[in-house]
Amino acid sequence: MTYVGIDLGGTRLRVAIAGASGSIKHVVRHPTEAAWGPEHVITRIVKAIEGALRHQHVKPADVAAIAIGMPGPANGRTGVVLSPPNLPGWRDVPIAEILAQRTGIRTFLENDANLAAFGEARVGAGKGASHLAYVTVSTGIGAGFVLDGRLYSGSSGVAGEVGHIVIEPDGPLCNCGNRGCLEAIASGTAIARAALEVLSTRTRTELRRHAGANRPNAADVVRAARSGDQVACRLLDRAGTALGFGMGTLVNLLNPELLILGGSVMKAGRLITRPMQAALVASSWESARRGLRIVAPALGQNAGLVGAVEWARLQATSPGRAQAIS
Amino acid sequence: MTYVGIDLGGTRLRVAIAGASGSIKHVVRHPTEAAWGPEHVITRIVKAIEGALRHQHVKPADVAAIAIGMPGPANGRTGVVLSPPNLPGWRDVPIAEILAQRTGIRTFLENDANLAAFGEARVGAGKGASHLAYVTVSTGIGAGFVLDGRLYSGSSGVAGEVGHIVIEPDGPLCNCGNRGCLEAIASGTAIARAALEVLSTRTRTELRRHAGANRPNAADVVRAARSGDQVACRLLDRAGTALGFGMGTLVNLLNPELLILGGSVMKAGRLITRPMQAALVASSWESARRGLRIVAPALGQNAGLVGAVEWARLQATSPGRAQAIS
Repeated sequence: MTYVGIDLGGTRLRVAIAGASGSIKHVVRHPTEAAWGPEHVITRIVKAIEGALRHQHVKPADVAAIAIGMPGPANGRTGVVLSPPNLPGWRDVPIAEILAQRTGIRTFLENDANLAAFGEARVGAGKGASHLAYVTVSTGIGAGFVLDGRLYSGSSGVAGEVGHIVIEPDGPLCNCGNRGCLEAIASGTAIARAALEVLSTRTRTELRRHAGANRPNAADVVRAARSGDQVACRLLDRAGTALGFGMGTLVNLLNPELLILGGSVMKAGRLITRPMQAALVASSWESARRGLRIVAPALGQNAGLVGAVEWARLQATSPGRAQAIS
Repeated sequence: MTYVGIDLGGTRLRVAIAGASGSIKHVVRHPTEAAWGPEHVITRIVKAIEGALRHQHVKPADVAAIAIGMPGPANGRTGVVLSPPNLPGWRDVPIAEILAQRTGIRTFLENDANLAAFGEARVGAGKGASHLAYVTVSTGIGAGFVLDGRLYSGSSGVAGEVGHIVIEPDGPLCNCGNRGCLEAIASGTAIARAALEVLSTRTRTELRRHAGANRPNAADVVRAARSGDQVACRLLDRAGTALGFGMGTLVNLLNPELLILGGSVMKAGRLITRPMQAALVASSWESARRGLRIVAPALGQNAGLVGAVEWARLQATSPGRAQAIS
């Protein structure tokens, strides 16, 4: 039996063909552009699936299920993409139904961070854990929860919006319209924006040298901090502290045994994790935190794609959704 | 078949005897004192169960299960009470095992707010909802979650610590040792303490008249606010705003369809709900909030006791714990 996993982002599409055990046999990558809109992208997806199946000499009738992960709010129960901020023009698109009709294969939709969490839980860093949160701190902040051994996606598929926990009510404006969201303080984009603001002042900092002629990015801030620049250290300190308050709140509400924490910003290491740990302790109940392990992801960039394959396998073999992790 | 539900608090013990359908036939109440310690209280509980069963002419062998709800962290899987702040001396007490041995009846433990949430979900204001949070704002702030139709209690039974979400990192000290927890700002105790602080200054307020010779309590603050006192209004405004930020965070993480919000502080009505609603909107993602209903509890003071009976029924009829709500 064959399964198809799809990871659709703002700039690329990946389609994986996997065998009965979930082992991925073939991956097709296509660049996409947000401006294309749903019709064009869906045609691309269908062609990519057909091409990948032909390449593997698999007939559509032998595919048990397709699962597709998409950024932004997605309702897994209805298979409808709500309104992904990174994919303008996609509003209330019944993507699962459309793909099923065009390919003749049962199709399931989930949010991409949820599928990454599910992939890590099933075959990655979370193997064996029943209560875990997966958080990725990168351009934005994405998260997914596996609770009591099942992917938790909320009443309309929008659970896990860790990036929009308000940390500083008077803080920077977030893309979502609110102020002081975790994502507006601790994401790579937010760290870069804070660095740019510093450079617009007369503050003495090595950041100028590290950024060169370009706008500074989060990696420049980390390099400057590593070379001892105090301004850069403070920027990362603020991000790490905000992240710790967010994680502390998550721990208070969910009491997970495992927090899988990754993404490009975490590459800053102790510059982020030290203030994060202090804020996590200052914002969580000891009983809820006791026994918590914080680990790095194991699947890296592939978590979402692996998660899509695993989700397709689960949906094909278990009735209904949100089934127990085997 | 008979079920026994027990609600044990810091100052009272209630034991309910229920029939196969969950209908409660008899309730026994006993005052308790926190200073008594576990041995004395457990003896009281056993006697209360035996007396109540005799009163109903039921033999212990005809009781399918006992469920007991206790304040503070409790591990439902192991049946061990961890360290309830309101019950000094109770540390790592295997209460379920002890009660089972002394009564000869299978016994299950859960946190009392979790059982109240479960009771409301099963036969109260949450009937029919699969994703709900129950929050009670009273002396303290308690909460319980029913997610995907199952009571969610976390990896060690400590999930749902909504009262310890940090809202103001430099805010008032909480009993838990952290600063600015929701409970330290929005609980009845916190509102009363803030009122006392105001009275210690020369601020012009009607609060003095409403409190009389006593320390002010939250009800005095509500009365003063209703009579137009601006200082009292600001105290409730701060509490309502903190509550809204906490609820916004809860909505972002859990995407519930229903929020059951009760407790004595909510009796302040719009004085609390108006600032709460504004802060909830300012701190939650529109997609996560869309479709959310906020309602009052239906079971009042009995939620925990009804929840205990329902939990006993579920545990007796379903293998394992955390089963689907029927």
